[in-house]
Amino acid sequence: MGGFGRKAYEFLSELGLGARNPGCYVNGAWTGGGPVVASLNPADNQVIAEVMEASIQDYEEGLRACAEAAKIWMQVPAPKRGEIVRQIGEALRAKLQYLGRLVSLEMGKILPEGIGEVQEIIDMCDYAVGLSRQLNGSVIPSERPNHMMLEVWNPLGIVGVITAFNFPCAVLGWNACIALVCGNCVVWKGAPTTPLVTIAMTEIVAGVLEKNNLPGAIFTSFCGGAEIGQAIACDTRIPLVSFTGSSKVGMMVQQNVNRRFAGQRCTTCRRLLLHESIYHTVLDQLVEVYKQVKIGDPLEKGTLLGPLHTPTSKENFVKGIQAIKEQGGKFLFGGSVVESEGNFVQPTIVEISSNAPVVKEELFGPVLYVMKFQTLNEAIEINNSVPQGLSSSIFTRRPEVIFKWIGPHGSDCGIINVNIPTNGAEIGGAFGGEKATGGGREAGSDSWKQYMRRATCTINYGSELPLAQGINFG
Amino acid sequence: MGGFGRKAYEFLSELGLGARNPGCYVNGAWTGGGPVVASLNPADNQVIAEVMEASIQDYEEGLRACAEAAKIWMQVPAPKRGEIVRQIGEALRAKLQYLGRLVSLEMGKILPEGIGEVQEIIDMCDYAVGLSRQLNGSVIPSERPNHMMLEVWNPLGIVGVITAFNFPCAVLGWNACIALVCGNCVVWKGAPTTPLVTIAMTEIVAGVLEKNNLPGAIFTSFCGGAEIGQAIACDTRIPLVSFTGSSKVGMMVQQNVNRRFAGQRCTTCRRLLLHESIYHTVLDQLVEVYKQVKIGDPLEKGTLLGPLHTPTSKENFVKGIQAIKEQGGKFLFGGSVVESEGNFVQPTIVEISSNAPVVKEELFGPVLYVMKFQTLNEAIEINNSVPQGLSSSIFTRRPEVIFKWIGPHGSDCGIINVNIPTNGAEIGGAFGGEKATGGGREAGSDSWKQYMRRATCTINYGSELPLAQGINFG
Amino acid sequence: MGGFGRKAYEFLSELGLGARNPGCYVNGAWTGGGPVVASLNPADNQVIAEVMEASIQDYEEGLRACAEAAKIWMQVPAPKRGEIVRQIGEALRAKLQYLGRLVSLEMGKILPEGIGEVQEIIDMCDYAVGLSRQLNGSVIPSERPNHMMLEVWNPLGIVGVITAFNFPCAVLGWNACIALVCGNCVVWKGAPTTPLVTIAMTEIVAGVLEKNNLPGAIFTSFCGGAEIGQAIACDTRIPLVSFTGSSKVGMMVQQNVNRRFAGQRCTTCRRLLLHESIYHTVLDQLVEVYKQVKIGDPLEKGTLLGPLHTPTSKENFVKGIQAIKEQGGKFLFGGSVVESEGNFVQPTIVEISSNAPVVKEELFGPVLYVMKFQTLNEAIEINNSVPQGLSSSIFTRRPEVIFKWIGPHGSDCGIINVNIPTNGAEIGGAFGGEKATGGGREAGSDSWKQYMRRATCTINYGSELPLAQGINFG
Amino acid sequence: MGGFGRKAYEFLSELGLGARNPGCYVNGAWTGGGPVVASLNPADNQVIAEVMEASIQDYEEGLRACAEAAKIWMQVPAPKRGEIVRQIGEALRAKLQYLGRLVSLEMGKILPEGIGEVQEIIDMCDYAVGLSRQLNGSVIPSERPNHMMLEVWNPLGIVGVITAFNFPCAVLGWNACIALVCGNCVVWKGAPTTPLVTIAMTEIVAGVLEKNNLPGAIFTSFCGGAEIGQAIACDTRIPLVSFTGSSKVGMMVQQNVNRRFAGQRCTTCRRLLLHESIYHTVLDQLVEVYKQVKIGDPLEKGTLLGPLHTPTSKENFVKGIQAIKEQGGKFLFGGSVVESEGNFVQPTIVEISSNAPVVKEELFGPVLYVMKFQTLNEAIEINNSVPQGLSSSIFTRRPEVIFKWIGPHGSDCGIINVNIPTNGAEIGGAFGGEKATGGGREAGSDSWKQYMRRATCTINYGSELPLAQGINFG
Repeated sequence: MGGFGRKAYEFLSELGLGARNPGCYVNGAWTGGGPVVASLNPADNQVIAEVMEASIQDYEEGLRACAEAAKIWMQVPAPKRGEIVRQIGEALRAKLQYLGRLVSLEMGKILPEGIGEVQEIIDMCDYAVGLSRQLNGSVIPSERPNHMMLEVWNPLGIVGVITAFNFPCAVLGWNACIALVCGNCVVWKGAPTTPLVTIAMTEIVAGVLEKNNLPGAIFTSFCGGAEIGQAIACDTRIPLVSFTGSSKVGMMVQQNVNRRFAGQRCTTCRRLLLHESIYHTVLDQLVEVYKQVKIGDPLEKGTLLGPLHTPTSKENFVKGIQAIKEQGGKFLFGGSVVESEGNFVQPTIVEISSNAPVVKEELFGPVLYVMKFQTLNEAIEINNSVPQGLSSSIFTRRPEVIFKWIGPHGSDCGIINVNIPTNGAEIGGAFGGEKATGGGREAGSDSWKQYMRRATCTINYGSELPLAQGINFG
Repeated sequence: MGGFGRKAYEFLSELGLGARNPGCYVNGAWTGGGPVVASLNPADNQVIAEVMEASIQDYEEGLRACAEAAKIWMQVPAPKRGEIVRQIGEALRAKLQYLGRLVSLEMGKILPEGIGEVQEIIDMCDYAVGLSRQLNGSVIPSERPNHMMLEVWNPLGIVGVITAFNFPCAVLGWNACIALVCGNCVVWKGAPTTPLVTIAMTEIVAGVLEKNNLPGAIFTSFCGGAEIGQAIACDTRIPLVSFTGSSKVGMMVQQNVNRRFAGQRCTTCRRLLLHESIYHTVLDQLVEVYKQVKIGDPLEKGTLLGPLHTPTSKENFVKGIQAIKEQGGKFLFGGSVVESEGNFVQPTIVEISSNAPVVKEELFGPVLYVMKFQTLNEAIEINNSVPQGLSSSIFTRRPEVIFKWIGPHGSDCGIINVNIPTNGAEIGGAFGGEKATGGGREAGSDSWKQYMRRATCTINYGSELPLAQGINFG
Repeated sequence: MGGFGRKAYEFLSELGLGARNPGCYVNGAWTGGGPVVASLNPADNQVIAEVMEASIQDYEEGLRACAEAAKIWMQVPAPKRGEIVRQIGEALRAKLQYLGRLVSLEMGKILPEGIGEVQEIIDMCDYAVGLSRQLNGSVIPSERPNHMMLEVWNPLGIVGVITAFNFPCAVLGWNACIALVCGNCVVWKGAPTTPLVTIAMTEIVAGVLEKNNLPGAIFTSFCGGAEIGQAIACDTRIPLVSFTGSSKVGMMVQQNVNRRFAGQRCTTCRRLLLHESIYHTVLDQLVEVYKQVKIGDPLEKGTLLGPLHTPTSKENFVKGIQAIKEQGGKFLFGGSVVESEGNFVQPTIVEISSNAPVVKEELFGPVLYVMKFQTLNEAIEINNSVPQGLSSSIFTRRPEVIFKWIGPHGSDCGIINVNIPTNGAEIGGAFGGEKATGGGREAGSDSWKQYMRRATCTINYGSELPLAQGINFG
Repeated sequence: MGGFGRKAYEFLSELGLGARNPGCYVNGAWTGGGPVVASLNPADNQVIAEVMEASIQDYEEGLRACAEAAKIWMQVPAPKRGEIVRQIGEALRAKLQYLGRLVSLEMGKILPEGIGEVQEIIDMCDYAVGLSRQLNGSVIPSERPNHMMLEVWNPLGIVGVITAFNFPCAVLGWNACIALVCGNCVVWKGAPTTPLVTIAMTEIVAGVLEKNNLPGAIFTSFCGGAEIGQAIACDTRIPLVSFTGSSKVGMMVQQNVNRRFAGQRCTTCRRLLLHESIYHTVLDQLVEVYKQVKIGDPLEKGTLLGPLHTPTSKENFVKGIQAIKEQGGKFLFGGSVVESEGNFVQPTIVEISSNAPVVKEELFGPVLYVMKFQTLNEAIEINNSVPQGLSSSIFTRRPEVIFKWIGPHGSDCGIINVNIPTNGAEIGGAFGGEKATGGGREAGSDSWKQYMRRATCTINYGSELPLAQGINFG
């Protein structure tokens, strides 16, 4: 371990990382027979460290071991599984600052956001521990004498998790915490451009499993690209594959990933609708605020906007700006890249029609579209006119507006906020979208049910054998 | 109305049916611009009555009206929607005998089963009425002061239901009762070979809507074939399409229908696994029982086996018998068609290896495969070795077997019975399968959630505007 | 039957009532060995009809039969019990107008309220039918291998219901509908001054039981006074006694009854707190409205205020008015009895300090105390300063006020309304109070749990016998 | 601190204990103005350490501070309250061995049981943390347009906990963990004979509160006797007082305490019912096992039976043995005290009629009554024939017996076990009894609801003001 090119990177050894790292945790051991790739710092596009990705042989070996481990893990009582997840939470607490720093360094988000992302996994662990004693099925009254109906929830076996660069570890956390207490093994492939986070996170989970003499294969993890992702998506041994939200349709993974993780923050506000009576006042204030946004090294205190994740993201930003211009957008602020070695761009405000095609797509960068409306109905109609449906927010102090907004004729998103930004939900609620961003829920509420298979059991404990629908035989 | 070819069919006029019937209920009126088709009696393949199917223009007009009606219906308070469903239940009660008789006549199942099918819709109505006051969301504690999190359930808008011949109206009932109280309009396409049931059932719902001065388009119904089914499956105005179980993937409808409704009863027992110690004794008794099964007119008292639904089903039975022979199956009883004008075949018992490919498929007819096992583990492995996973049953009086069977290492079906046949669940439980027969749940438990869209709402009612993850601005 | 003194009373024969009626339904038969009492019309204090009340022998016979019936009824599957309650609902629907009229006639409330009261029982029946398939226990994950924890809900056996004159049948309905689907028999004692409602209501339930060949003793009913009430309250065979809300402490019944049913409507608004900025404007309007309130025969269309229930209530009103005067109250409207043969009094508005003792008690009549406040905190403090805690309401359009009002520092009542009067909750919610009016919940939410006993079951189905807390033996 | 009479007691300083200790934690500081009492070791009745109990002035000061703290604590968001409880769990983990040793030393139970008792609080903490994000109310569909019904759960304010010697800290843990996350302050009075456990436990909670800059008065704790207990029970500022199980009837505290904590373990098996076919065989084996039970110092490895808690308990044991003799009991083993300085008695087996009065009472010592039965019904009847109803167990492998036992005609206890001893439930289930041992539930399931007050809220956010029951005004 150790031997990093820069002193600023030496904290990585606290996370078990070195200058070159095996990128697969397979059957309880670190390996990596695939290509060697470099993890780059988006603030200067220089190498942080190297990683040996997974070969397809690594994948196969990993899955075989994982399937074996699943038989053991699903027999461990749920509260005992909760205890393992509790220990994972404690291990993360001990490394919170380091892990948050790594997230910020490798991904490009500012440090409070990097630490916040790790904290969210810790909170999920705490939540999942309590949940491990509440994965309740139902005893349902039967219409037949001497019968009892039970709704029992059993583990699925293996849950695959494919995550993207924008939340390189929180999304794993949402899924893995619940999946593990539900009795499932986890197979994780992190984003190709954030392999160090993948490895550091895996190290922590692996340490807890080993300390408890449990098979490491309960948590199987791969650094790698589309080939491994495709393998997970097509593997019939994996009944559930999750990629923020979850879907049983493995074949559509790449498409979904593209569709779902377009921005650097999936709940970033893309469109700002302002009532005509306050339109100009608010816009003027907003431009003033944007002028003060400090762009720079995400690890530095005071920075509010870090770099885009990759040079490609910067290119896509430039293309997006061009499209906005062609579709009649008027730039109120920003619209350019910042000259530097890193992938920095200006935060951008665009005045544009709600019908412009670019508004209905997800652009790769900090662009905010502003538009004017006259009535609440009109605003809701614009809100609902895009194919995405993850998060939405309204600012108002009128109860009739609040309750219309969250009701049948209101926002059609999965997350509907009032007087707070377009954040995701807290972990006690369910996180997920509707429409094109639909396909499941993670974290709280009854999301855990997606990680289990439901069995409707009817037990006849009497001495008579009834036939269906009152048919008499003979 | 009236003018049926046979006196035995005159009861159909009690259901609003005549010799020729318009097959679409569109925007509150009966019409039918598509081809005229005949409904045949499977016991003799003679015409019962004729039906004018839907044209694609009928469909378009129906959907437009339905989408308009949805805006009104979703604003009707849920308990008031429950009152409408209660009235539908009462209207069905009044016609129970006639409707049951029609189901039996047109589909071919025996009369107690025909009546039982209608009774199940009546029970669903009663259940849905109570449910209309219990479609509860959650108030979830927020981690932020002056915030409240709500999980609110809103209607989807329109629910499409495509049903098959084997349960020509119960499946509609499971879906429509819940969909309606949830605030959705319903678009139904019945099976092409059971149009009279589709029309009679629709008449009853329509009557209730009209009596309550509600738009008839709340319930939109079509007789028709693949073209209309495809239109429903591809229609972006319909966020949920159900075909026993439910799926959001409209493109896969036909495939699913084929996969799902293979038998005449989707929970029919296909495989009988007997422990070696009782194998011969039980088989001998079973053959004796099969000898006494009365085959004949399903409306006649005492009949236990009616005809297959169509001549095509009979042909498929013959092909299946041939495949069984080729794969080493040994016939212990039956295996032939019964010579007649109708589609009658013998109930059939086949001794065969659990690995024979034919055992893993769904055959179109009353064929039971029997096989021997030595240990419980072996029996469960055989049980789980097929791609389907709807219903399964064990007969035992040993608690350790009961609880293993319903647990993580037991049956992988959605319905797991003990000491009762492979029936479906009662309506208070959730009905649905796993694996290839997976894709959702209907009827009781929390199945209603599938008919609504979930909104995780966070309301900040305080005077401060917090940012995510503790970021401070400026 | 028949032979009423007045033609206006002849509709009572439609409810099975005559000029003299046995007042006990015991072991499926009508009897009445106690004193003969007269039911009086509060609008003129003339006799409507006579009733033979229960003797203590009737009570004993009734309870013995009821305890026997309980053994049978608790074995009837819950959904079948739901079917009986459904039929009770249908029978009530058929007599809705007559029953509502009787409630109005005998109790004194206006006709729409009388009919509304019966409608509420009908709604409860519908709700309870759905509930009969949802009396769900839980399957809870165990921390031990080969163990399953179940939370099972079993019937209590017999539920006693003692009701008061102000809601002479709705309160029975709330309790009986839920108690019956939960598998309990019901023992009912109605108010001594509304025996005809008690008998008519019992007739309807009895008819359904008889039609279904069930023991009449499942529903055992008594007209009578304190002696019978005391017998119910002290009977160890009755594990739950309910008197709006429910309590296990039978000895405190009379005290509670006095405390709980003071007004003619338990959720009647007693105190009106007005912000100083609108105080005079609102009061002026209110006095104008009070001037137009039509007092008179409750059965007559347009009447808004009927008589008090009994001459005693009128006397108590007079005493209350005196107390108000002594404590500094200033009469803005009313304050007198209306000269007539009936028990009519004026609707009354009183300006008074929130600290006056009379304000903290429940007065027997239509007296509204008005008071001024300056801040929300002050208003909430006044609201919470009385020992009662049933229902409360605020009128505001400010979200921060709404959410404070329903939160930890808001109203301490069981029912907290916003922009609607101090009504009770709808039946889907739970009805009940806190503090002195506390002691349980009826109708919706999880109120049904109070009518059952909870069993936390742990089943070890494995072959090992573990000891508690890891103790090893030998 | 320090200065204990014996070296074996020096570990107590690790728990913050000294030779003489102030016994009240009041407004965040340690004090004790009442009598000085000695804590005795039940194995030799020698002094362990001294404690200054609470005066009634201490109580008053404590309650005043607690009521103030309640206003702050109930505004801390529930998940943040969960974080405090999580830290309490961590602090207990760090002291598990010491605390467990103290419980064993001061109370007399064997060491694995002492440690097990503390572990149970730790588990409760973990559980409560998860629960802090799941204290969910409901959003209930309203029957009125533009209305929303909410069921909101608010804190009660202060929860009083009075615990007994047999579980000197676990019972506090069950109540306090849930009460705290629910937003309540806790007022605790421990048993007069286990003050050191009370102080040590309080130290740990206090440390966490202080570290988080929260008012110490959130957790207010007293060593003391009946006077303090009575003060808590009668204090109108404390809406809920719990003494294993919970009751709102403060006046009955002492009576209940006597009734509830009779044995050293409330779920100890008192009666053993054996089927006649195995009666003698099992009894013979049992006597053999009893012969090998090692009686002695509870801290010593291998000891299975420690001393009774006090000399009084020993006297009561002697009286009980006398009563057994008088009522015809036949001693199969034991029946005597063990001569020593401590409170040791023999484990005792008695053959006796199920009707003997002594069998229906709770005796203060390790006495097992054995009795014979012939049929299951007879056994259940005997089981249900006592006034207590906490825990019960059956050993059988017949499903029809299992399901009868847990059903309407089975055991009438709150805890119903199958093939495990008469333990309590795991913490995910609800702990509590029925009948004389009834009055509430603690720990899991929905027990948390008892620690909150339920508000059924209806919000009208539309512009119309509807009246109840369709009454029109004017």
